[in-house]
Amino acid sequence: MTKSVLISGGAGFIGSHLVDRLLRRSDLDRLLVVDNFWTGLRRNLSHIDDPRLRIVECDVERFRSDDRFDEILHMASPASPPWYMREPVRTIKANVGGALNLLDKLAPGGRISFASTSEVYGDPLISPQPESYRGAVDCTGPRSSYDESKRCTESLLFECHRTQGIDVRIVRLFNVYGPRTRPDDGRAVSNFLSQALTTGRLTVYGDGTQSRSWGYVDDIVDALERYFWLDPVDYCGPLNIGNDREIAVIDIARYIAQLIPGVEIDICPPIPQDPTNRRPDLALCRRILPGWEARIGYEQGIARTLDWFRAQVEHGADTHAPGPVRL
Amino acid sequence: MTKSVLISGGAGFIGSHLVDRLLRRSDLDRLLVVDNFWTGLRRNLSHIDDPRLRIVECDVERFRSDDRFDEILHMASPASPPWYMREPVRTIKANVGGALNLLDKLAPGGRISFASTSEVYGDPLISPQPESYRGAVDCTGPRSSYDESKRCTESLLFECHRTQGIDVRIVRLFNVYGPRTRPDDGRAVSNFLSQALTTGRLTVYGDGTQSRSWGYVDDIVDALERYFWLDPVDYCGPLNIGNDREIAVIDIARYIAQLIPGVEIDICPPIPQDPTNRRPDLALCRRILPGWEARIGYEQGIARTLDWFRAQVEHGADTHAPGPVRL
Repeated sequence: MTKSVLISGGAGFIGSHLVDRLLRRSDLDRLLVVDNFWTGLRRNLSHIDDPRLRIVECDVERFRSDDRFDEILHMASPASPPWYMREPVRTIKANVGGALNLLDKLAPGGRISFASTSEVYGDPLISPQPESYRGAVDCTGPRSSYDESKRCTESLLFECHRTQGIDVRIVRLFNVYGPRTRPDDGRAVSNFLSQALTTGRLTVYGDGTQSRSWGYVDDIVDALERYFWLDPVDYCGPLNIGNDREIAVIDIARYIAQLIPGVEIDICPPIPQDPTNRRPDLALCRRILPGWEARIGYEQGIARTLDWFRAQVEHGADTHAPGPVRL
Repeated sequence: MTKSVLISGGAGFIGSHLVDRLLRRSDLDRLLVVDNFWTGLRRNLSHIDDPRLRIVECDVERFRSDDRFDEILHMASPASPPWYMREPVRTIKANVGGALNLLDKLAPGGRISFASTSEVYGDPLISPQPESYRGAVDCTGPRSSYDESKRCTESLLFECHRTQGIDVRIVRLFNVYGPRTRPDDGRAVSNFLSQALTTGRLTVYGDGTQSRSWGYVDDIVDALERYFWLDPVDYCGPLNIGNDREIAVIDIARYIAQLIPGVEIDICPPIPQDPTNRRPDLALCRRILPGWEARIGYEQGIARTLDWFRAQVEHGADTHAPGPVRL
């Protein structure tokens, strides 16, 4: 039986990679991308020439259609602090309002998959973080629109599963980077690469000892396609997906600085409530997706991403880092 | 200058007490209650004969009006586990969708007040809980629709304050009880009193050692009217409001059992993820609302509530406890 699939945020960084994977499916009849191009980019999909793909420019929480979809992937949301801190209300609408709206578009027996985040753990007090960890999120703070709208959307979907038997798949993604990140995205790897290729000065916020687990997008999307549609899994989530090799931000900056002659590092005031550490406990992921591993280390992943950023610069794309956020 | 005020959930337990207080105000020009009577009751407002009051039967997230209000109090939400666990999607819509909708109805310079909850602390790992405690909520569990929609609505309003300068007031209420609770509300005090007056058998879930801080509604509403409109306070929240005398559920049951001859206590299986303890740190509340205290102990409060439940029974109101919840 052929499937109709909707993906919100399909022009975004991770969303557009998922679109490529979805279009490899022979059972896919049509694929609708709903994207408002707030943080997504048309050029992330411009390489695709497939009659099954249709793109609708629309806020996901306002999308109207009489069609019902067999599979829905809810990927619409900014994921970078400068973006969601500038427009927190819009962030909550995209996540929670988007999920509420998409649930009405799901065909009977359909599946809805959702990209949640390691930010549901806040600034974690244990490391690595297993899925059972309840987190340490300040629901009054300047990062809360993202963290809490992801948490609330998880709750919405798990409760739809419990009370209505809806088939859901919820992943918690840990710091993904790679080609198709916006140059003005504002997160560490893309920021450093944009800066290295333009101003030559990398801005590290705080002392740089805050650590992250840097997942190269190809590895992450391998896991997503297996969990969202390829593997016959009977587990609705939450599922941590990421690279569990934990590296400090300053070490990423130093690595990039040594790749490009003349680049220097500036130490800037810390970002409010920047988590001090972040590392996935992948025990469950390895059970649910046997054989999957994040295979690409940061050295190789950054080299590939740098090549992509260089090509962007050569093609004249805007590669400036974002402006400051009012706090 | 006279004020137009909107209160969502104004026919509910706490909401209707706030309506009484609001109508004491000489500066109040008109008061609109928006209530869908899901858990609110028309009879909670039937004693009022005031031409300034208007009641609209409507889901708060769907309320449409061209009017703008100087003050909005967002009180609409079920607050009892059996109610929100039966309809989690509706609970999230009422809280988050309700707040998003009401923000559009706020006049420039207006104030929006929100009833959040001690449930934002989940099953707390510290006691008492100060406002700075980030909580231990399972965002995948059967209580999460309430806990996470309250957390997300807090985030929404605090972020509106940060990014748009909107005047907000956010309280976290700890276990309130008293007259106008639904007899089928399902929380401990009302459940025990309903059962004592009907079946004579009180159902305690788990071993009854889980503790709560029982706030009599008059005390709580005293604090709310001071914080929401009476006192010239420059603090947007969050503010714990409750009674910090912590009593185990089994002790409340025993107290009620000794008030009414022949009443017995049944021990039932625990409710999933029932918090083990709950006690407000009121240091901030005492600074923000000097002189305020929860003055009514559980003995006196339960006696008053029992009188009210007896009068309800005599007037033929349905006083049955709620049915079970599917988990």
